[in-house]
Amino acid sequence: MGTNKMWGGRFGEGPAQIMAEINASVDFDKRLAAQDLAGSRTHARMLADQGIITQADAASILKGLDQIEGEIADSSFIFKRELEDIHLNIESRLADIIGPAAGRLHTARSRNDQVATDFRLWVREACTRADAGLLALQRALLKQAAAHTDTIMPGFTHMQPAQPVSFAHHCLAYVEMFARDRGRFTDAAKRMNESPLGAAALAGTPFKIDRDKTAKALGFDHPARNSLDAVASRDFALEYLSAASIASVHLSRLAEEIVIWMTPAFGFITLSDAFTTGSSIMPQKRNPDAAELVRAKTGRVLGSFVTLTTVMKGLALAYAKDLQEDKEALFSAADALDLSLAAMAGMAADLKANPAKMRAAAEAGYPTATDLADWLVSKLNKPFREAHHIAGSIVKRAEEKGVTLEKLPLADMQKVEPGITSEIVTVLSLEASLNSRTSFGGTAPLRVREQISFWQERLK
Amino acid sequence: MGTNKMWGGRFGEGPAQIMAEINASVDFDKRLAAQDLAGSRTHARMLADQGIITQADAASILKGLDQIEGEIADSSFIFKRELEDIHLNIESRLADIIGPAAGRLHTARSRNDQVATDFRLWVREACTRADAGLLALQRALLKQAAAHTDTIMPGFTHMQPAQPVSFAHHCLAYVEMFARDRGRFTDAAKRMNESPLGAAALAGTPFKIDRDKTAKALGFDHPARNSLDAVASRDFALEYLSAASIASVHLSRLAEEIVIWMTPAFGFITLSDAFTTGSSIMPQKRNPDAAELVRAKTGRVLGSFVTLTTVMKGLALAYAKDLQEDKEALFSAADALDLSLAAMAGMAADLKANPAKMRAAAEAGYPTATDLADWLVSKLNKPFREAHHIAGSIVKRAEEKGVTLEKLPLADMQKVEPGITSEIVTVLSLEASLNSRTSFGGTAPLRVREQISFWQERLK
Amino acid sequence: MGTNKMWGGRFGEGPAQIMAEINASVDFDKRLAAQDLAGSRTHARMLADQGIITQADAASILKGLDQIEGEIADSSFIFKRELEDIHLNIESRLADIIGPAAGRLHTARSRNDQVATDFRLWVREACTRADAGLLALQRALLKQAAAHTDTIMPGFTHMQPAQPVSFAHHCLAYVEMFARDRGRFTDAAKRMNESPLGAAALAGTPFKIDRDKTAKALGFDHPARNSLDAVASRDFALEYLSAASIASVHLSRLAEEIVIWMTPAFGFITLSDAFTTGSSIMPQKRNPDAAELVRAKTGRVLGSFVTLTTVMKGLALAYAKDLQEDKEALFSAADALDLSLAAMAGMAADLKANPAKMRAAAEAGYPTATDLADWLVSKLNKPFREAHHIAGSIVKRAEEKGVTLEKLPLADMQKVEPGITSEIVTVLSLEASLNSRTSFGGTAPLRVREQISFWQERLK
Amino acid sequence: MGTNKMWGGRFGEGPAQIMAEINASVDFDKRLAAQDLAGSRTHARMLADQGIITQADAASILKGLDQIEGEIADSSFIFKRELEDIHLNIESRLADIIGPAAGRLHTARSRNDQVATDFRLWVREACTRADAGLLALQRALLKQAAAHTDTIMPGFTHMQPAQPVSFAHHCLAYVEMFARDRGRFTDAAKRMNESPLGAAALAGTPFKIDRDKTAKALGFDHPARNSLDAVASRDFALEYLSAASIASVHLSRLAEEIVIWMTPAFGFITLSDAFTTGSSIMPQKRNPDAAELVRAKTGRVLGSFVTLTTVMKGLALAYAKDLQEDKEALFSAADALDLSLAAMAGMAADLKANPAKMRAAAEAGYPTATDLADWLVSKLNKPFREAHHIAGSIVKRAEEKGVTLEKLPLADMQKVEPGITSEIVTVLSLEASLNSRTSFGGTAPLRVREQISFWQERLK
Repeated sequence: MGTNKMWGGRFGEGPAQIMAEINASVDFDKRLAAQDLAGSRTHARMLADQGIITQADAASILKGLDQIEGEIADSSFIFKRELEDIHLNIESRLADIIGPAAGRLHTARSRNDQVATDFRLWVREACTRADAGLLALQRALLKQAAAHTDTIMPGFTHMQPAQPVSFAHHCLAYVEMFARDRGRFTDAAKRMNESPLGAAALAGTPFKIDRDKTAKALGFDHPARNSLDAVASRDFALEYLSAASIASVHLSRLAEEIVIWMTPAFGFITLSDAFTTGSSIMPQKRNPDAAELVRAKTGRVLGSFVTLTTVMKGLALAYAKDLQEDKEALFSAADALDLSLAAMAGMAADLKANPAKMRAAAEAGYPTATDLADWLVSKLNKPFREAHHIAGSIVKRAEEKGVTLEKLPLADMQKVEPGITSEIVTVLSLEASLNSRTSFGGTAPLRVREQISFWQERLK
Repeated sequence: MGTNKMWGGRFGEGPAQIMAEINASVDFDKRLAAQDLAGSRTHARMLADQGIITQADAASILKGLDQIEGEIADSSFIFKRELEDIHLNIESRLADIIGPAAGRLHTARSRNDQVATDFRLWVREACTRADAGLLALQRALLKQAAAHTDTIMPGFTHMQPAQPVSFAHHCLAYVEMFARDRGRFTDAAKRMNESPLGAAALAGTPFKIDRDKTAKALGFDHPARNSLDAVASRDFALEYLSAASIASVHLSRLAEEIVIWMTPAFGFITLSDAFTTGSSIMPQKRNPDAAELVRAKTGRVLGSFVTLTTVMKGLALAYAKDLQEDKEALFSAADALDLSLAAMAGMAADLKANPAKMRAAAEAGYPTATDLADWLVSKLNKPFREAHHIAGSIVKRAEEKGVTLEKLPLADMQKVEPGITSEIVTVLSLEASLNSRTSFGGTAPLRVREQISFWQERLK
Repeated sequence: MGTNKMWGGRFGEGPAQIMAEINASVDFDKRLAAQDLAGSRTHARMLADQGIITQADAASILKGLDQIEGEIADSSFIFKRELEDIHLNIESRLADIIGPAAGRLHTARSRNDQVATDFRLWVREACTRADAGLLALQRALLKQAAAHTDTIMPGFTHMQPAQPVSFAHHCLAYVEMFARDRGRFTDAAKRMNESPLGAAALAGTPFKIDRDKTAKALGFDHPARNSLDAVASRDFALEYLSAASIASVHLSRLAEEIVIWMTPAFGFITLSDAFTTGSSIMPQKRNPDAAELVRAKTGRVLGSFVTLTTVMKGLALAYAKDLQEDKEALFSAADALDLSLAAMAGMAADLKANPAKMRAAAEAGYPTATDLADWLVSKLNKPFREAHHIAGSIVKRAEEKGVTLEKLPLADMQKVEPGITSEIVTVLSLEASLNSRTSFGGTAPLRVREQISFWQERLK
Repeated sequence: MGTNKMWGGRFGEGPAQIMAEINASVDFDKRLAAQDLAGSRTHARMLADQGIITQADAASILKGLDQIEGEIADSSFIFKRELEDIHLNIESRLADIIGPAAGRLHTARSRNDQVATDFRLWVREACTRADAGLLALQRALLKQAAAHTDTIMPGFTHMQPAQPVSFAHHCLAYVEMFARDRGRFTDAAKRMNESPLGAAALAGTPFKIDRDKTAKALGFDHPARNSLDAVASRDFALEYLSAASIASVHLSRLAEEIVIWMTPAFGFITLSDAFTTGSSIMPQKRNPDAAELVRAKTGRVLGSFVTLTTVMKGLALAYAKDLQEDKEALFSAADALDLSLAAMAGMAADLKANPAKMRAAAEAGYPTATDLADWLVSKLNKPFREAHHIAGSIVKRAEEKGVTLEKLPLADMQKVEPGITSEIVTVLSLEASLNSRTSFGGTAPLRVREQISFWQERLK
């Protein structure tokens, strides 16, 4: 059996190629280049300040790193798989440029704390990006809310129209969700903000390094307190992925609503060509592709959380090569989230509500039946359950007559409950219902405007 | 085809039984009884204070709820599936006890805000329990650490002995992980601490309720600001599950190590009979069942996160029956976590380190080779990469002679690198290596004792 | 710190209680009682036939097992947690009943092969149940299909009406999906049908047992060929869970459609009270609770697959206590699937299509624009892409005039494409479109009726 | 707020760029190029044979497709994002090359059935690749088995040595697992082998196409029977992913064992440099990187299954843009599986067992205590449970004396059980234990050799 037959077409060169393919990570970890350069500069400066390397060596290293940064920026840097990862690629190029002094950069450092530092910096930035994306989305929703405090749509339970709410109120529900999402990213960024640099391979180092200084220079709150933990833990990445998963759930809910609202049957909103694709043959057709893709990307983000949790499960300390599988999962989720947030912010800004269609849908059913029941409780002092029963009977009567509650003659109502007076009409319209829900957090325009002010203050 | 044949043995009664089985939740949501009673008491008092119901009705309701609490406590309360859920079971029993006034309790409230409130209270308590469990575990590990700052074991990378560390240092790595886990539960508890009560079905209510008062009485920071969000969101449960998943990963890593450390080949620790099972035939055998189960339960917790994320994905607002699937997933994960934490705290307290076996394993390989290289850097001013190369050659020589680095004659070393002096012996022992790692966060006993003090102060 | 404080309220008795809670499985593995009895009977008979135990002992054992079966059936059997699992509970009770001979039953057997056998039998039955549930569902859908070959509804892409299809065709799409689901369960049942019994603890046994005989008696195809694999593998459970996950996806898609079709805006179907819950106040409201719950249970089934995969990942051979976590995950998923299938079969039989609403929705947009383009291709020999462009222009004209394609004057069409003749009207109605799709697998009633016959033959 | 500020650096061009990024799939679906070309050729030939297009047009199309194939092969083909996907990229290039006739290729076809066909072809090939990879791995394991039928290692339960087994037997356990994995891929490939081509957009087509012919030409068993199902279903991809997940679990178990076996404490095997990475400083160190990466990649494959299941959950028929998320998840999992299989086959062939270390570990504990008990059952006719108790007491005695069972004087044994004779020594050695396990599937070399023959026959 020849090599070819043994390893299959893709691995024609046998073990060497397999090992290269499975082991090398530079194809994806080159995304850590900026973080790696930042870490190396900080480390080099500290080594010199502490007298561990000379200032001249440090200057030479820094100059070399500048050159490398330029080469990466103008795409002239050649990434080599045989050098495995971004760290060795940069180190090797540094040696090309500045000679043996390059070797001093790795003093009191190991790839283990180096990659932990680089990756943490990357994830911290991803938290910041997520926060900015969520903020843009909140602002777009808030703008819609401000324009639609009096636009009535059905509030749904079980996707059945239940009680009238305003479109503003609906938009603000998402503003709340995304606010909590932002909180999760902020908390995650804060919790992960410990510097692994100086943990070395796993045990610390005998060199007289100053970890406080490097931590501060890289924007960390302080150095990580335990060297084993610093190189072996990836809960910071898991926390990002869990926050991203939860945010994606919220995005998927809004995306689902956009898809449904765009159906001719609902017709609650329209999206411009910017976020839909047309059909060359049915010009009126607007496919909400972007919303569908946002909805779908939830799967990818959750999948990434599952991936990394499964990788980490049962892994003995400290560093294991398994950890190399942390990056692609996270990059893929972060790209999906960033893009989804941008697309959703775009759609939230772009969408045009159709108040007439919303109102028509709100009228389906007897959405003010609860208001009738509430009136019976507060005016006739009925126990709530009995009031509900009476309201049900009245609705049944209206249904038989084929009229809305508003249009049902008072006499009909009084046959069910003699205590009802003509005052009842004041609660039976959609507007009356909407305006009446004045409890804190309720959909009454009065209340909703307060919430809009609250958020306008905070999302400035 | 008879009913039986059509629906199969389990659903012999057809649709009615299927619907009862799929729809009723009281079998599991009765775990919310205490929370439901607390919410109802608070709601009743507020309704009376606001003049929405009479003080007499409120008193009657409160008395009835007290009786129900007693009945649940002494197991005389009969849960009925036909009443669907815990809420209707309690309400129906209240009507039995106090008559029609029971019906007034549901004024300005809906099952939607009621269940959201109950469940949130339950999850908040679960966060508190998780924190307590993690704290107990940290304390047990800290105690082990305090006793073993000088107990040398191999620090592993790729499960290969790499550099000596102390058992204390290893224990403290987990103290750090569990500290971050506690932070996640604390943050989650804080973020979810908004009261849904008063959101009613989805839109708020016209009754002049005081949501601040009920929020405060139930220990919430403030009422939720948007009624749709209050009844439709479950990110608080997802956040608990994600924190639990990450904590479980940490538990599984320690559990895996316990399993490996208990093998005769490693023999690093022993566990008493309290946490192992024996074999009736091999008396020396100690199966680490508890550790294996802790390791395995990671699957269940992650599975629960996946379950609820999948349930929530793409769900249109506001309430949908899908949300009923939130509780079993969370209860199952919380039970697994609580139990795993208790078991792990127990094992961490129970385990006895075997310093001799740890030391022997640390000596395998040439664990102080890095120390030799570091000496070459700091004393002979070699670039790190060159120093590593020299150290490698010396290790090879030692290997050929079959001796440890400590025992290799100076002359042999000097043949590789003439600059080496007799001072070198000061860095080649395990103790020397351990003691030398004095960088912040390093394994040097000096440093580790500082960390122990740090944690003793915080975990009092 | 007292015991109480140390272990928390739930674990007041300390380690002993923790260990009991984490280790004992009888609370859930008692569901294996029937399988355990079957396995033990078969094993006892074989031991006697092989002369390993006496026929008298075997008779005594069998009698004792009969009694135990009776006790379990009439709920007089007392399951004891201190006896850990179902196997030891039964064995201990057998000893109570028949004395020391009970001890001979365990000859040439271990709990490891015993539990593997019991669980495999249970999962095999679960496959059979799933198949039966899927078959019932297919039949219900097929019946709907047979009644609705000419009921026109919109075929959707992106949830936008695209081309008319029949409701029958839509139902048959699911019949196909569920057919493949059945295939997966059948394949799984076949693949797992190897008997672990006789693998003993992990290495086989010196006793002259007859594994072919026990395999056959338990309905297995043959004994498992490797004793380590027999006790250590759970891919049979994973395969069940993956088939269940995929089937749940199909169920969730149909469930989603039911939820959407039940909205007033769509109104495609109605479900009777058997599968909806009403509102005491809005009598016309029908909440599709059962469909929502079926949709949601996908999460649980997928969660179970994730749970067990995570448990098994990286587990060294052979038996580990981690495997005890296999059962609850599978039971929970199987219960969810069985119930979902029954509920969905019930709904599929119960639902009433509303052809008028379906037709109205199909008319939204210009669903026969593709037919117009196809006519241009086949009659005027236009390249497809050009034909599409022409059709698009004609639709635009119709849109401007506010008429359907059918109603657009021929002259208007000819302004866009002079070659169009009056023959064109034959392709522009919904019926014409539906009838024209005569390619194999297409929605033309002619084709759909063939498919109905095909399935009627197979689902008899 | 400028565009830049609004959309962030990455989306500087605003909506257009966001939409391009989220909507375009050519960056990844270009991996379907070969399948797309095959599908188009088949479709073109059929159209001509059916007289739907002219033979001249077909010839022109085929020639154009040949040229495109060449351009892709030599990397001169320019993939354009603005053309969205691989299908439009090829179609557009075809128009460049052959002019308007290119437009006829899309007659009676839609992107919906086109992508379903292409993807199915790709996944079918992935099944074939997985099978080949598993076969290579089985062969490598079988070779090891053939060489080690008498190499004794400990059989583990709970990672504690339990009973001696042969290394051959251990290898064959995996051969069994991988055989079932192959069965799953084979079944999946068979089940998915229905041609979607001709389903068109979702409803079929009025053109007189011959779906049997295209199905056959593309190696499908027959055309899919329902056009909606054909374009809307992705269970074939889910089934591949589930089979891959389960296979990955098996791979991860073997990988975990390799990692543990490579520790100095175990030392059961060595791997050559081909599959390990060294340390520049510790020349004796061999890091099992490849095994660790195989172990970790389980996460990615499971994550992909979760991704696609989550995407598909609750998706209304027929085509939705969400389906575009199917490909990256599957490609990523397939790449991981292919590579893992190749790496594991390589390691299985490369590894060298260390029988001395295995034997030493097997002697830890009293691994023949079960044999002693079995002897008491079969020779002294003790009930199994009593025999176990006696054996336990004897082991305790041996433990006190610090000797193995083999070395314990007969008199000591007889003090516990007077019936024991000198014959007992024949069962107490590792070899005796191994040789005695002659039940079918047991570890006795006799039996194992039969299994080796069985597999040699089947894996030729």
